[in-house]
Amino acid sequence: MNFATELKAWSKQVDDALDLYLPKAEEYPATIHEAMRYSVFAGGKRLRPVLVLAATQAVGGDVAKVMPVACALELIHTYSLVHDDLPAMDNDDFRRGRPTNHKVYGEAMAILVGDALLTHAFELIARSAEDYPADKVNTVTLEIAWAAGSRGLIGGQVVDMLSENKAITGEVMEYIHRHKTGALFRAAVRAGAILGGASEEELSCLTRYSEQMGLAFQIKDDLLDIEGDEAKIGKPVGSDLKNQKCTYPSLYGLEQARNMAQQAAEAACAELKIFGSRAEFLRSLVHFIISRDH
Amino acid sequence: MNFATELKAWSKQVDDALDLYLPKAEEYPATIHEAMRYSVFAGGKRLRPVLVLAATQAVGGDVAKVMPVACALELIHTYSLVHDDLPAMDNDDFRRGRPTNHKVYGEAMAILVGDALLTHAFELIARSAEDYPADKVNTVTLEIAWAAGSRGLIGGQVVDMLSENKAITGEVMEYIHRHKTGALFRAAVRAGAILGGASEEELSCLTRYSEQMGLAFQIKDDLLDIEGDEAKIGKPVGSDLKNQKCTYPSLYGLEQARNMAQQAAEAACAELKIFGSRAEFLRSLVHFIISRDH
Repeated sequence: MNFATELKAWSKQVDDALDLYLPKAEEYPATIHEAMRYSVFAGGKRLRPVLVLAATQAVGGDVAKVMPVACALELIHTYSLVHDDLPAMDNDDFRRGRPTNHKVYGEAMAILVGDALLTHAFELIARSAEDYPADKVNTVTLEIAWAAGSRGLIGGQVVDMLSENKAITGEVMEYIHRHKTGALFRAAVRAGAILGGASEEELSCLTRYSEQMGLAFQIKDDLLDIEGDEAKIGKPVGSDLKNQKCTYPSLYGLEQARNMAQQAAEAACAELKIFGSRAEFLRSLVHFIISRDH
Repeated sequence: MNFATELKAWSKQVDDALDLYLPKAEEYPATIHEAMRYSVFAGGKRLRPVLVLAATQAVGGDVAKVMPVACALELIHTYSLVHDDLPAMDNDDFRRGRPTNHKVYGEAMAILVGDALLTHAFELIARSAEDYPADKVNTVTLEIAWAAGSRGLIGGQVVDMLSENKAITGEVMEYIHRHKTGALFRAAVRAGAILGGASEEELSCLTRYSEQMGLAFQIKDDLLDIEGDEAKIGKPVGSDLKNQKCTYPSLYGLEQARNMAQQAAEAACAELKIFGSRAEFLRSLVHFIISRDH
């Protein structure tokens, strides 16, 4: 199977699993379950769950078994978007071309939807205890909670918010990215690796892979905001510039930022050597990330 | 030790543990850690963590060891209050006589504070894996996530919100209470019992205890809104009446509601027989709950 076909197949499997794991839209109280599903099935790339699956595959683990944890990562990602879009936060009316959760269900419901998705993520992880040694599940819970908390994703979010309309250093910008998006990528890869039975060396390599991959992803995101096609990325191009946001291109220039993305991508792939052909997907994923157009 | 002294001692131990488990106020990014602490140390009764400790004690478990899980319950309770108070939700400016989180730190930060407290709760539970058989920790994670999620606390919250200014049946009112407050009481007691090594019979008795206790608590809450002393309960008396909220007194009358609280309290205590003197605290707690003045 080539990369595009496999990515599509895994995304589909993730979607099916999410449909299975989430409360049905008609379950009482139906409004929140419908609203949770509205944002979960809003056409995301499923990058985080696919990272979990691919990391498990790279270490020779069972991909089907790790699905609940993969889906948990997607729920955490989705909750963070729902809360991010709120009027008190980024105040976004659209995401991926569709009205944001609070535009459809109201602010109060959107707050609760985010809370419920986050909570449900930990329920899903705990349910994996049926399929794995329980201590591994606890390790993974700890990894993911750390990555999602005030020392991870939320910390990045806070610093990003406090840095708005301010000149910030490259160091602060890196803190923001490493936490706001990087932490969850890292936790996804590590969770998949740990549950798949990674050795210490394998876990170290995959951890460094995830960090470089996250960096490449972020620089590419910044580049797309300048060079991208509005219809494809689903939001106005140039919004970072308009909001005077500190980005890799604004800090290092367009050419240098492109080089940095390329270097991070190569560094990520270099960590995959010991896995041979089992890491083919993770390798292609990096190329996909830096050549994507949305 | 008599009940009041023991309650005070345990509350103090919970406070000390929370201080230990939460990121320090100066840890980067300091704003959120300070804001998390602002709401956690806002003078709550620590009822949920104390229930965890007391349930462990009743089954002969180690009270000190269960402290992280006890604190996790308090973090979940606090997060739900922070989000509840938001302008989009109940829009409360004061809680327990102090400005609410968003009044001090702004709405965006208060949303993130709630998210971070909820996430940190699951981190704390997972950390207990050092002290307990890992499968028990997973069971407890599952119990608590269920109780806090859209089928528990959040579900109650949703139905409460959708019922505002509407005539609702006693059944719907009971759904709201059983989920909005009852679910977390139940999870607290069950978590303490499970980690303390409860037998199946002990767990069943304590579960029923928690349900009756939660009912007594809720009816008393409704009664305090009519009969309470504003200065003591820290919010305006009569607000339920003003908001046309369906309460036990509004549905059954004052006298009958008082009887129901008394009956629930007695039913709760009846479940404690098999525990003998080890359940002395849980017994006194019920009397405390229905005789409290705030």
